[in-house]
Amino acid sequence: MIIKLKKEITSQELESMSSYVKENVGTVKLVRTKEGQYMVCIPQEDFDIRNIGKWAGVEDVFRVNDKHKLVSHKWKISPSSIQVGENLSISQEQFHLIAGPCSIESEKQVHNTAAFLRKQGIKLMRGGAFKPRSSPYSFRGLGLSGLKFFHRIVHDMGMLVVSEILDPSQLDEMYPYVDIFQIGARNSQNFILLDCMGSVDKPVLLKRGLSGSLDELLYSAEYIFSGGNENIILCERGIRTFETAYRNVLDLNAVPYLKERSHLPVFVDPSHGIGVRRFVPTMCMAAVGSGCDGLMIEVHEIPEKSKSDGDQTLNFREFEILYQQIKSLRKGFYN
Amino acid sequence: MIIKLKKEITSQELESMSSYVKENVGTVKLVRTKEGQYMVCIPQEDFDIRNIGKWAGVEDVFRVNDKHKLVSHKWKISPSSIQVGENLSISQEQFHLIAGPCSIESEKQVHNTAAFLRKQGIKLMRGGAFKPRSSPYSFRGLGLSGLKFFHRIVHDMGMLVVSEILDPSQLDEMYPYVDIFQIGARNSQNFILLDCMGSVDKPVLLKRGLSGSLDELLYSAEYIFSGGNENIILCERGIRTFETAYRNVLDLNAVPYLKERSHLPVFVDPSHGIGVRRFVPTMCMAAVGSGCDGLMIEVHEIPEKSKSDGDQTLNFREFEILYQQIKSLRKGFYN
Amino acid sequence: MIIKLKKEITSQELESMSSYVKENVGTVKLVRTKEGQYMVCIPQEDFDIRNIGKWAGVEDVFRVNDKHKLVSHKWKISPSSIQVGENLSISQEQFHLIAGPCSIESEKQVHNTAAFLRKQGIKLMRGGAFKPRSSPYSFRGLGLSGLKFFHRIVHDMGMLVVSEILDPSQLDEMYPYVDIFQIGARNSQNFILLDCMGSVDKPVLLKRGLSGSLDELLYSAEYIFSGGNENIILCERGIRTFETAYRNVLDLNAVPYLKERSHLPVFVDPSHGIGVRRFVPTMCMAAVGSGCDGLMIEVHEIPEKSKSDGDQTLNFREFEILYQQIKSLRKGFYN
Amino acid sequence: MIIKLKKEITSQELESMSSYVKENVGTVKLVRTKEGQYMVCIPQEDFDIRNIGKWAGVEDVFRVNDKHKLVSHKWKISPSSIQVGENLSISQEQFHLIAGPCSIESEKQVHNTAAFLRKQGIKLMRGGAFKPRSSPYSFRGLGLSGLKFFHRIVHDMGMLVVSEILDPSQLDEMYPYVDIFQIGARNSQNFILLDCMGSVDKPVLLKRGLSGSLDELLYSAEYIFSGGNENIILCERGIRTFETAYRNVLDLNAVPYLKERSHLPVFVDPSHGIGVRRFVPTMCMAAVGSGCDGLMIEVHEIPEKSKSDGDQTLNFREFEILYQQIKSLRKGFYN
Repeated sequence: MIIKLKKEITSQELESMSSYVKENVGTVKLVRTKEGQYMVCIPQEDFDIRNIGKWAGVEDVFRVNDKHKLVSHKWKISPSSIQVGENLSISQEQFHLIAGPCSIESEKQVHNTAAFLRKQGIKLMRGGAFKPRSSPYSFRGLGLSGLKFFHRIVHDMGMLVVSEILDPSQLDEMYPYVDIFQIGARNSQNFILLDCMGSVDKPVLLKRGLSGSLDELLYSAEYIFSGGNENIILCERGIRTFETAYRNVLDLNAVPYLKERSHLPVFVDPSHGIGVRRFVPTMCMAAVGSGCDGLMIEVHEIPEKSKSDGDQTLNFREFEILYQQIKSLRKGFYN
Repeated sequence: MIIKLKKEITSQELESMSSYVKENVGTVKLVRTKEGQYMVCIPQEDFDIRNIGKWAGVEDVFRVNDKHKLVSHKWKISPSSIQVGENLSISQEQFHLIAGPCSIESEKQVHNTAAFLRKQGIKLMRGGAFKPRSSPYSFRGLGLSGLKFFHRIVHDMGMLVVSEILDPSQLDEMYPYVDIFQIGARNSQNFILLDCMGSVDKPVLLKRGLSGSLDELLYSAEYIFSGGNENIILCERGIRTFETAYRNVLDLNAVPYLKERSHLPVFVDPSHGIGVRRFVPTMCMAAVGSGCDGLMIEVHEIPEKSKSDGDQTLNFREFEILYQQIKSLRKGFYN
Repeated sequence: MIIKLKKEITSQELESMSSYVKENVGTVKLVRTKEGQYMVCIPQEDFDIRNIGKWAGVEDVFRVNDKHKLVSHKWKISPSSIQVGENLSISQEQFHLIAGPCSIESEKQVHNTAAFLRKQGIKLMRGGAFKPRSSPYSFRGLGLSGLKFFHRIVHDMGMLVVSEILDPSQLDEMYPYVDIFQIGARNSQNFILLDCMGSVDKPVLLKRGLSGSLDELLYSAEYIFSGGNENIILCERGIRTFETAYRNVLDLNAVPYLKERSHLPVFVDPSHGIGVRRFVPTMCMAAVGSGCDGLMIEVHEIPEKSKSDGDQTLNFREFEILYQQIKSLRKGFYN
Repeated sequence: MIIKLKKEITSQELESMSSYVKENVGTVKLVRTKEGQYMVCIPQEDFDIRNIGKWAGVEDVFRVNDKHKLVSHKWKISPSSIQVGENLSISQEQFHLIAGPCSIESEKQVHNTAAFLRKQGIKLMRGGAFKPRSSPYSFRGLGLSGLKFFHRIVHDMGMLVVSEILDPSQLDEMYPYVDIFQIGARNSQNFILLDCMGSVDKPVLLKRGLSGSLDELLYSAEYIFSGGNENIILCERGIRTFETAYRNVLDLNAVPYLKERSHLPVFVDPSHGIGVRRFVPTMCMAAVGSGCDGLMIEVHEIPEKSKSDGDQTLNFREFEILYQQIKSLRKGFYN
């Protein structure tokens, strides 16, 4: 059960409400986000929610029989709109591309790519400063210094920054330079990091785990929301299977499933989803067909020289053609 | 190495050619199809193919370093066109839908569905007479008698029949009533059945196994082609993974991969690929985006009363809307 | 519900019994095996089985709420014992090894291997005459002629023959030369072949599919039993996963699960289960620890020269050492 | 290439050595552990290692063509022995059980369990203070206060503490109360946490990821070793597959593979590996058969009342019987 509280609820009303629910319904978690205040209750047994609705300070009460509560579509019928920076919102109204290199490598690289992307009309640029790598001997990113110039160049061009955080200890130093925090596949069930993201007042793009079930993904999103941050974008990025013909199996089934189960926007990352550069544009088309709200695509001036993920990264010309196709497809789609 | 032989090659030329290759190159398999004659050679070691090209009766010689030979795109650059019946061809030039019920249930059911599909403009109708079922106690199809009236009704309406064969012993009785033989996922590596399909002069729609790799799918197609039948349609129908939110994971990555590796047309079966009726239309859109050459969709007048696969079957109204969307999407796609 | 019928039931009693059940309980399937006669009923709704017990010709009635009926442990509490040939029985009382080459290659090969195995005390020898191979260009076995001399040599040495059947069309010709028919992983859901095995009066060793669930395996066994043959051995042989360090993942969890769910004996095939020769002996030890009733192991005089599966086949010396270890382990296990 | 340095190497020798290698061989990472000093070099191209051997301060040089270096068996032929506390060492010489509850729940619970385990002769007790849970609304452990009394009681009984760490921020507070830090499956590729474990002078038990490949597990161990801590125990705990009959598939193939590839000890966790209480003892037997160096088993006085993982936890009586069987099996094994 979710109890949506009025903004003007007094602390006394809140307290008596909370004790009442604890005593008569079940466990209670109070959730405060920028957008609202909620009480999430896991009832011990069946309960007449009308009793709750009459209390002072209560805006609305919802019975949510999903295991996921705050991220469920059952109580919040209209899809969420995620505010990024001051002038951008991510929702199903408008399709967004997040594009950019896997890793931040140099000022020149960032500058050239940012200039190209801005010309294309892209508003969200990705770039990894801290890279999770299987081997400790691989390139692990330029760290904070890289993120700083990335942020400067990208903002100078009027775009916003998407970058991955690996650990709560990085939050304070990264905070000023990031507009959307990305949680990578390997951290999809790093619950301490998810808790930490709940305390942040910036949006989070949450990737599905390597073999994460969609219910686990929704639970991970629930961590962030119940921690106090309701600005979450879900991202399908391919799962691990027996098939070795490509890096991952992009699971587009996830898109209609997630959009039915949750009010959160759903993105797709075809670059990781197939992991083969020449197939990425096709899988972007497929993803658009699946009804996702946006795409994340890896772009590099010279993918062959990229320090990571070069095998799945498009060059400028490939991206440009793809972007035209996406626009054309989406037009066809809705006419 | 594939040696394409001239139609007019004499048996003497063929014989001396064959002994020469056996002695100097490696193992030889002579393949005769309706469309042509080929020698497939697995060379012991490197060999100068120019020596072969000069022989009488040789049209062309191709070095194919894929493990798959006859189905490989390496020697046959242009995509294959599959002739079905007398007036229909399946190729990447034109997009085709195969639609119809999972199982043939009654004359009335077939008649109503066929009339509906014809009105929509569908040319290929599916219907199972022999159903592979996990449990021996489930409905296993009406068998030959069902297939007979299915064929009569479908042909009367000017459409063609797609139906699954489970065993070589069914070939003779099924032959007059089937236009495209379907090999189901559970028989994707039934090599005796594949051999048998090689001897047939009608097209075969070959589904990927439950957890079949794409290389195995191509090998299975190679069985059919090298058995003498080059009219093969590959079909992605979802794979088995850890995810339990839906019946299978539709692997659209397979489409660009297969179309690069092989000259054969590639279909997608979103009904099995997600197994959830209300998500099937969305996954059809995604499949179209992935560039497949056609779709196979389960349709029933009242899916709730279907004897099998009702959970993933569209009703007439749903199919009609979907079909309009597919047409609209494909227009957008190519403009 | 399973109704075990008396041997002496009259055809009239049977008929009236059958109509009564059809009318009052649900669908009925009459199953006749060498060992007994059964009626398997899938009741429409709850039913008082005591009514049935009183009928003439009824030996016993069992309520089986498993989806698998005849193979379920719920009605047959004591584990099954499978008679092979005249003097051998497979059950959990005595541990059996099935050993031998992947493929029958030559009389000399079979003779040397058979002589070695007999000296070791092995009673069941495997050898493939018809080989299921991913590629049509691989060695596909010597066929019937190979099976004939295999049978002669193996029987001359007092052992029994285990060999794989690929298709019902092979049954008649193989029948005289096989003591246990093997159904391979790729045919684990070849329902026509399973039906066919139901009609045979020799035991069947049924392998789990590449990615077959255990419930599917039990269903496939139910096909054979309900077809009239209750002499079935289940065999775990590794499943397909994301892990590429070995050929398959031997799933020993399957052993206690299958032994709880079914009264049938459970074997393990560690040769396919890991697919790496030097690890096979260790996985045999693990399999014994899991409580299986027997093992199937690939053995060849010179594995490096084996025509198939050489990478997972033990030589004579390795097998000899392993066999000693198995005996020693099993002693330790039960003391 | 691994250069093992002498303890008495001077800083000047080290410096000139390091520059020489950087210039002539490739990238260099200096690794200092309690036990020794190493230089790990990833050579750009082939290099004559004999040149290195002559330098002052060099004890030995090893060419390691594995992608894993310090954890590889290629350079360290003898299996590692891991010192825990002052009087215990984990190695393949002696088999160890880690036993205890999933979660620390109360002093009474810990006391009763500890008393029982000590009587059995167990030396390592597990208990979770910080629990990773899919849902934010599940019990997440008693935290530090629980760990403190756990440590006191366990140490009072002469046993040592194994407990899971979720995040680097917990290290300082947990450090005094933990003898072996456990890294759970969901953190198997939490690289920041792995880095952090590299800086600790206590052993780490590292679990394989939910769908982590064994090569990824070895890489994760390499993070810890190259971070400065060579006291690592690898732990197989089941992988995620399509099979839903049990929680995970215990992959015992991993044991011989890991023991061949690495010098580190390998444990198995059958409780998570099958996730079904009544099958856990059988899978312990199988694990012993696979040659692992130890087991981790969940034990609770009343599993039905356990706050987490009750479905896979043994009670005292079950554990006692199992322990006798393990001892008996291991005797049989080596006789």
